[in-house]
Amino acid sequence: MAEQRIGYLGPKGTFTKMAVDGLFDGGTYIGYESIPACLDAVENGEVDTGVVPLENAIEGSVHLTIDYLVHQVNQSIIAELTVPIKQHLLVHPDHHNHDLKKIYSHSHAIAQCHQYLHKNYPQAELEYTASTGRAAEIVADMGTGAAAIGNHLAAEENGLKILAENIHDYDNNHTRFAVVQKNPMTLKVKDQFVTKQKTTVMVTLPKDYVGALHQVLAAFAWRKMNLSKIESRPMKTGLGNYFFLIDVDQPYDQILFPGVQAELEALGCQLKILGTYPSYQLDIPSPIRRA
Amino acid sequence: MAEQRIGYLGPKGTFTKMAVDGLFDGGTYIGYESIPACLDAVENGEVDTGVVPLENAIEGSVHLTIDYLVHQVNQSIIAELTVPIKQHLLVHPDHHNHDLKKIYSHSHAIAQCHQYLHKNYPQAELEYTASTGRAAEIVADMGTGAAAIGNHLAAEENGLKILAENIHDYDNNHTRFAVVQKNPMTLKVKDQFVTKQKTTVMVTLPKDYVGALHQVLAAFAWRKMNLSKIESRPMKTGLGNYFFLIDVDQPYDQILFPGVQAELEALGCQLKILGTYPSYQLDIPSPIRRA
Repeated sequence: MAEQRIGYLGPKGTFTKMAVDGLFDGGTYIGYESIPACLDAVENGEVDTGVVPLENAIEGSVHLTIDYLVHQVNQSIIAELTVPIKQHLLVHPDHHNHDLKKIYSHSHAIAQCHQYLHKNYPQAELEYTASTGRAAEIVADMGTGAAAIGNHLAAEENGLKILAENIHDYDNNHTRFAVVQKNPMTLKVKDQFVTKQKTTVMVTLPKDYVGALHQVLAAFAWRKMNLSKIESRPMKTGLGNYFFLIDVDQPYDQILFPGVQAELEALGCQLKILGTYPSYQLDIPSPIRRA
Repeated sequence: MAEQRIGYLGPKGTFTKMAVDGLFDGGTYIGYESIPACLDAVENGEVDTGVVPLENAIEGSVHLTIDYLVHQVNQSIIAELTVPIKQHLLVHPDHHNHDLKKIYSHSHAIAQCHQYLHKNYPQAELEYTASTGRAAEIVADMGTGAAAIGNHLAAEENGLKILAENIHDYDNNHTRFAVVQKNPMTLKVKDQFVTKQKTTVMVTLPKDYVGALHQVLAAFAWRKMNLSKIESRPMKTGLGNYFFLIDVDQPYDQILFPGVQAELEALGCQLKILGTYPSYQLDIPSPIRRA
């Protein structure tokens, strides 16, 4: 059997790559520079599986992933992976007691370390990059006097050392990643802790009217189906036209879900299953290097 | 009376700056490099008013804005502004029939022009930048052979010319911007089309249980209050703890809203008004230069 080919949002050293390393047990890994490029590669068969951020992401927007899955490609979510976000301050190995004049990272990562930076490096100039992985590459090229904010993998991949660990302002910060396939095949993953089975559905309304969402949710509520996330997103047909994205905390079955579907269709709504999948939780190993 | 000081998500030539130019009738404008930096400037009184993207944004994430407003600062949304997103291909004025080797932009802007780029410039290397404004700056420095994707203001501000207009794949793409203040004062704006009055509320649940959101929405639905957006967002206290962000299509009043509040508090929920405000719609003028 051929080795599985896995595409992910790169470059090397991103949180997405960390998710991939944690989940998969071998295969060919290909980093893509954007979420659409990664999903396109899945669509045209360049890779078998794609991994992209879905919620609370650092590099990239949830909305971009959702909208692309809904509008541009025809793929299923076959797993999700939750990864704790731990940000570190990364410097060149030659850096010792130099002043830090510039700190590079993605704007979201800088925002997550806002209080730390304000307290410890009020004078440093903040430079925004397209990803935390890119920030680490830049600092590796520049040498001393600059730092990047990123994860321990970005340090390893770029030969940087960690000057300060866990500099993010809030603990309990996680990113959810979606694992997607066009032609669902078995996923060969490491032994992981499966927290629960989930199903993501998309509901479109015939038109906007008062109480529409309340009516949609009734179909789930009276069946005692728990929803762990709901979001309204604009259709691309103009402002005011919305669809709903709903995460249900149970696997798809042939009794409850067809019942919900029939009830919603009677209201003029449409229901599409974007995926039914296990939810994996990833523990992040401690950083291996320290200044 | 002192001139109003307005902070916005910069650099010059971003869609946020275009929103600011469209809405305000004079004042001192200060561009900030990130959403948190802009909201911090409002918080510490460096500016009177801040303008940041709220939904379907190009430069920056909705989530970052929402989370920062909810967790980090104490400000009110006093207006929203909806701006159509039109992307153009921008080149150096010396560019004539050169090959385009590299195309620079924010990953969301590149995603929005995906089909156009794939069809017209399949060979060009795509380079991701922190904002569309930054992409235009880079191309202005580089000269011929490169292009940026951005709006007409980015062309003007950086002395670039427009090689191709409206290269975005979907029409009807809009960004919503929030206008925020710490100490609400009168907003001096140009004559704008106010589409409606809206109120944004945040609802937190005592704990997650089946049908919770359905119960919350009932308080709005039976009062025939129309909701134009709803989103569940994780609290920063760990996965699984959510709050709801709800846009109601009417101004705050002393009858319906206190009724909703009392009903939700009886369920153990908390309701916080993030703002009640006019919704402005901005028309974008046509580009003034063309290659």
